[in-house]
Amino acid sequence: MPEFRKDIILDEWVIIASERAKRPEMFKEEKIKIENPPGMVCPFDKGNENMTPPEILRLDINGNVIENSNPDWQIRVVPNKFPALKPLAAPGSKLYGIYSIMDGFGLHEVIINSSQHISHLSNLSKSQIRLIVDVYARRLREIKKDPRIESLIIMLNQGKDAGASLEHTHSQIFALPINSPVLEKELRGTLRYYRRHKRCAVCEILVFEAKENKRVVFENSHFVIIHPFASRNPFETWIIPKKHYPNFENIEEEEIQSFAECLKILVDFFYNELSNPSFNYYIHTGPLHTKTDHHYHWHFELIPKLSIKAGFEIATGIDICITTPEDTAKFMKEKLKI
Amino acid sequence: MPEFRKDIILDEWVIIASERAKRPEMFKEEKIKIENPPGMVCPFDKGNENMTPPEILRLDINGNVIENSNPDWQIRVVPNKFPALKPLAAPGSKLYGIYSIMDGFGLHEVIINSSQHISHLSNLSKSQIRLIVDVYARRLREIKKDPRIESLIIMLNQGKDAGASLEHTHSQIFALPINSPVLEKELRGTLRYYRRHKRCAVCEILVFEAKENKRVVFENSHFVIIHPFASRNPFETWIIPKKHYPNFENIEEEEIQSFAECLKILVDFFYNELSNPSFNYYIHTGPLHTKTDHHYHWHFELIPKLSIKAGFEIATGIDICITTPEDTAKFMKEKLKI
Repeated sequence: MPEFRKDIILDEWVIIASERAKRPEMFKEEKIKIENPPGMVCPFDKGNENMTPPEILRLDINGNVIENSNPDWQIRVVPNKFPALKPLAAPGSKLYGIYSIMDGFGLHEVIINSSQHISHLSNLSKSQIRLIVDVYARRLREIKKDPRIESLIIMLNQGKDAGASLEHTHSQIFALPINSPVLEKELRGTLRYYRRHKRCAVCEILVFEAKENKRVVFENSHFVIIHPFASRNPFETWIIPKKHYPNFENIEEEEIQSFAECLKILVDFFYNELSNPSFNYYIHTGPLHTKTDHHYHWHFELIPKLSIKAGFEIATGIDICITTPEDTAKFMKEKLKI
Repeated sequence: MPEFRKDIILDEWVIIASERAKRPEMFKEEKIKIENPPGMVCPFDKGNENMTPPEILRLDINGNVIENSNPDWQIRVVPNKFPALKPLAAPGSKLYGIYSIMDGFGLHEVIINSSQHISHLSNLSKSQIRLIVDVYARRLREIKKDPRIESLIIMLNQGKDAGASLEHTHSQIFALPINSPVLEKELRGTLRYYRRHKRCAVCEILVFEAKENKRVVFENSHFVIIHPFASRNPFETWIIPKKHYPNFENIEEEEIQSFAECLKILVDFFYNELSNPSFNYYIHTGPLHTKTDHHYHWHFELIPKLSIKAGFEIATGIDICITTPEDTAKFMKEKLKI
């Protein structure tokens, strides 16, 4: 029997219709390589630094900030060459007839995850991934100083089907002049839960899922990997910090290590055990100017492109997930052999 | 400069970032055929009627209901063989630990758009499309008699990338025990607009767009085809009835003719002038048990799969559209030569 499950963070229903299911192992497909066109020079490779807009940050292997002229870099942060949002626009909306319109104000940065021409995080060492996570937090702490920024998104598109336009692995940061609709929904949903239960919904999820032990895939000292109860997608995977705090950028040194371990486990699993599907991941972190201390709990979500959002999902906003998170968590746990 | 545009129906912002744009004609791509596996017998073809679940409705070329044994059918309606929702489930939600869960109650019907093995609406005559629209309205009027149904969705997935699982053209109807999140957003947005302006937002759009004449593609006696101001997707196209009423199923005889003309123009355009991209279309029709007479106005939306929803869109719920509706409406108008 298909069932509706309510996501208690978004306070929205999804449909789990596992009778239409593929078995988890059927998601294994031929690896489709994402390749730059032949002869294309990659602007993210070491030696091609002048092909990007003027850089914002350059780090060496130890995470030290180094000069723009120093070729021994491991990670660079640059503005997006084709930004979806621009820093020089004026905030505030204006009317155009019956409609509202607003300059596309915001920041859109690119983090070049490696100086080597590598197309998947799985081909990076855990220490390099640790460095990437460190850069995420550093940039957010810097960007949030601009009082016009209301919210921040860190994300990564892996593979052509996930919208990646260059094969060289890179992350992106967006700084927005509004709280996004998804963040607003999470804020409303978690506030409603908090008012009713005097507890953070995400903290409650951690307690309940540990007890049930059906959807938890892995945990280490500071983080838990789970397949969410109301999964919207096959193999949707979250990483949740055990400690309650709203904003990712306040992550502590030892948590960074622990988070990087989880991220490495995840990307290795998808690369090796599910034949490298395209995926998107992002960090949902608290808003900058809305008080959320008690009810918002930052988290990481990875959404593999293993199913198509069709007319029903687009028309209704209700996702149909063709696997159960219980099945996919079991599969993943067995493959991890942890 | 990229800009935020507010959809006054959903009351949500989208980003129009046309500097990242492709020109409209660049969306022409090689036709990728959707094909059933070789040797597969199509359950929707004439002669294979016994391969579907017991049918709900069978019509001849004149739209008359005919016997299940009559081979001269043009359209059949059958329950989905792998339904996402089932009629025999109990409505009402229950608790599972901290979560809510609800049987997947609802109806999920398939409309076989033609007795011939045809894969695209564009290969059907206008009179056959008229018949399909007529069936949409007939089924909705019938299904809404069940008091447990709160809202209805009619949709069509065209092509593999849009989630179609069989090449034989077919539509789907979903009957839901809730108002979907998208419908709820539309209801909230249009009610807010109505309270402020004492006018229906969609009626206002029709007046403003006719005056501006930048995003209107076509109109006939009862309908207008437009590319919406806050388009979420390249070539997103709406068909809006000129007369204000909330529920599609109350469409009148002469409107059906007029709507079918618009739909035929649309599907021909995408098939012939944009090289047959996959697309989803659906009808947003008013809820069955929420009073909306003054502020809700049914409409049709077609979303071609010409761009990928990547990490930013998934993480934020803000769509980035890489074309302006002004450009795509101009392109479409020129191609239609009307």
